Amino acid sequence: MSASELPFLPVAGLQLATGAAGIRYQGRDDVLVLALAPSSNVAAMFTRNAFCAAPVTVARQHLATAAPRYLLINSGNANAGTGKRGLTDALASCTALAQFTDCATEEILPFSTGVIGEPLPVDRLAAALPNVLARLDANAWPLAARAIMTTDTVPKLVSRQFELNGQTATVTGIAKGAGMICPNMATMLAFIATDATVAPALLQRCLQHAVAGSFNAITIDGDTSTNDACVLIATGTLGNPLIDQAETAEFAALQTAVDALCLELATAIVRDGEGATKLVTVRVENAANVAEARQVAYTIAHSPLVKTALFASDPNWGRILAAVGRAGVVDLDIERVQIWLGEVQIVSNGGRSPEYTEAAGAAAMAGAEILIRISLERGAALAQVLTCDFSYDYVRINAEYRS
Amino acid sequence: MSASELPFLPVAGLQLATGAAGIRYQGRDDVLVLALAPSSNVAAMFTRNAFCAAPVTVARQHLATAAPRYLLINSGNANAGTGKRGLTDALASCTALAQFTDCATEEILPFSTGVIGEPLPVDRLAAALPNVLARLDANAWPLAARAIMTTDTVPKLVSRQFELNGQTATVTGIAKGAGMICPNMATMLAFIATDATVAPALLQRCLQHAVAGSFNAITIDGDTSTNDACVLIATGTLGNPLIDQAETAEFAALQTAVDALCLELATAIVRDGEGATKLVTVRVENAANVAEARQVAYTIAHSPLVKTALFASDPNWGRILAAVGRAGVVDLDIERVQIWLGEVQIVSNGGRSPEYTEAAGAAAMAGAEILIRISLERGAALAQVLTCDFSYDYVRINAEYRS
Repeated sequence: MSASELPFLPVAGLQLATGAAGIRYQGRDDVLVLALAPSSNVAAMFTRNAFCAAPVTVARQHLATAAPRYLLINSGNANAGTGKRGLTDALASCTALAQFTDCATEEILPFSTGVIGEPLPVDRLAAALPNVLARLDANAWPLAARAIMTTDTVPKLVSRQFELNGQTATVTGIAKGAGMICPNMATMLAFIATDATVAPALLQRCLQHAVAGSFNAITIDGDTSTNDACVLIATGTLGNPLIDQAETAEFAALQTAVDALCLELATAIVRDGEGATKLVTVRVENAANVAEARQVAYTIAHSPLVKTALFASDPNWGRILAAVGRAGVVDLDIERVQIWLGEVQIVSNGGRSPEYTEAAGAAAMAGAEILIRISLERGAALAQVLTCDFSYDYVRINAEYRS
Repeated sequence: MSASELPFLPVAGLQLATGAAGIRYQGRDDVLVLALAPSSNVAAMFTRNAFCAAPVTVARQHLATAAPRYLLINSGNANAGTGKRGLTDALASCTALAQFTDCATEEILPFSTGVIGEPLPVDRLAAALPNVLARLDANAWPLAARAIMTTDTVPKLVSRQFELNGQTATVTGIAKGAGMICPNMATMLAFIATDATVAPALLQRCLQHAVAGSFNAITIDGDTSTNDACVLIATGTLGNPLIDQAETAEFAALQTAVDALCLELATAIVRDGEGATKLVTVRVENAANVAEARQVAYTIAHSPLVKTALFASDPNWGRILAAVGRAGVVDLDIERVQIWLGEVQIVSNGGRSPEYTEAAGAAAMAGAEILIRISLERGAALAQVLTCDFSYDYVRINAEYRS
């Protein structure tokens, strides 16, 4: 699929441009600039990895200091594990863009993704900026989605529309990520924009809600990245009455649209998981609380034995049940556990379901999308995690790729 | 290597015999019986997986009821996830052996390893027992080590000698395990015997100490099995004065020998890890406490990104540092973290070490045994975990094998 074929809706008040700085990749764009209308508000969430990259530190500081005017993103180099020089380099890249655009360094948010531990080539990045800035365009979303890719095999770009006070609002977002994916801000990078007018506190609340049910509910390999960041921009160009109350139909409409868009982007990340051949939903029901439901769901989603069985389309309920058993749920009564693969019950009361047949199990595993549903029979809480299988190609990609 | 070539020392008071019951494998032994002298004491540790196999439940009950006379082990079928029928089958197999040996059902401890969720073929198992019992022999250790293998590629058998009151005592053990290996009684099965005379409480204490530093400090894939069990038998045939005090030279000698033997067996399990090409020691030093040291060590040892880099012999310090960062250590100051690969410092103060060169990193990764050493600079606690890399063959073995 060529980038121009990706369907999307531009967002008034936001322009994008890409360029090739040769940071690591040759013959492809690896720099992206987002230019925000002065009326914009910006919400952001970052990695919770204690080892966070220099641009994450700088972006957090700038966001606390000034209203962002530009986002500067590069792929190919994470500027992580680069110590004090990394901070200097991240700042220097912001200063370069600030000079070309006549704004303050603090009005630039930097983002990087790629190899850890190599110095960021600030000179090459800065040299590319004039050409990039000359191409700013509200329709460059497909190019933007491609410019931020690393091991991704497909660009990830989604648009939605929703109604606000009789007007049609737009939300469009891009994401990248295929490995080093685990909760605590699971996507490596996602940039989402709406033309709606939204107060900063409500915008942050909206983003946090959407991320909890999407990027923070996926895992490919359990490895939380050093550079994860997700940004939600409200350009305010729609001219709708300011959304500044949560208990309103307008905020609900915004939340619904952003939730759906984030889930679609998060699903695209898992579908593009390194080496993935299957999209797997693990849903844990009837837990005593959400924490234990998540604990069981992630234990299954991270189990190499479960993931290799999924790759083999093997309805291996024993490995799933063993993962439930070792998840650390206090006083778990394994004899009450029920497990389904799609519609097929494979475990009843902690043992193989009497009606279960290998043929039915094999049929449930045959598709490219699989639902593993577990009932703990301990309460009413629920959690769901999206993951993928574990294939030869995961090993190949991560043995060959220097992240 | 043929089984007969494995060096070992027999243990007076213990006889072993193997046989082929055709439980799952054809053309190889899959049943093992251990016959214990009446003077024996027995200590045991079992899986902490809430989903534990029927033989684990039965063995625990029998151990609490009577002094064991026989251990009955089969490979090829785990008798796990088999519900009430599994318990009946495990008991029935004990009863069969009890009848042939004229002892009580409670004097038999059953152990199983293999496929989860298939009924145990008790009839075939029982039918093989008369021939097995006719072959009981103190020298059958190498055959025993082979009979309990599943995905193992090599048998694991170790002997040690130690001095007790001027006499020479012996301790010999076997283990099996290559996948579904993680702490909380990490080995799937290990049987160890000494001819020393040891009080039950001291024997259990000795086993727990040895397991903490060996089987419970290894991981291959983070998947704790349903059938893990480790048994230490003291036959008492040596005639040494009863060891019933911990603060004695005799207990110290026993402990040292059993510790060393368990570590050697545990190391053999990791070396035989499914698809493993490297033996990796992760040592976390200068932690605030042992719990956080273990937490960091296991996060690294379980990281698919670190394990695939190890497979590729890639000195990828960024992935190791990212795993340290996401391990959940409260208030971790990543800028104080130091990391070495063997003798080569790759990370100083949270960034790439200034003296580090790719050539030195590559040299440190070239061997089949790798030490990853991390200093957190937070205190004086230490933990160490043995693991292996993650290769194409791990995926192949677990996609093909129905555990």
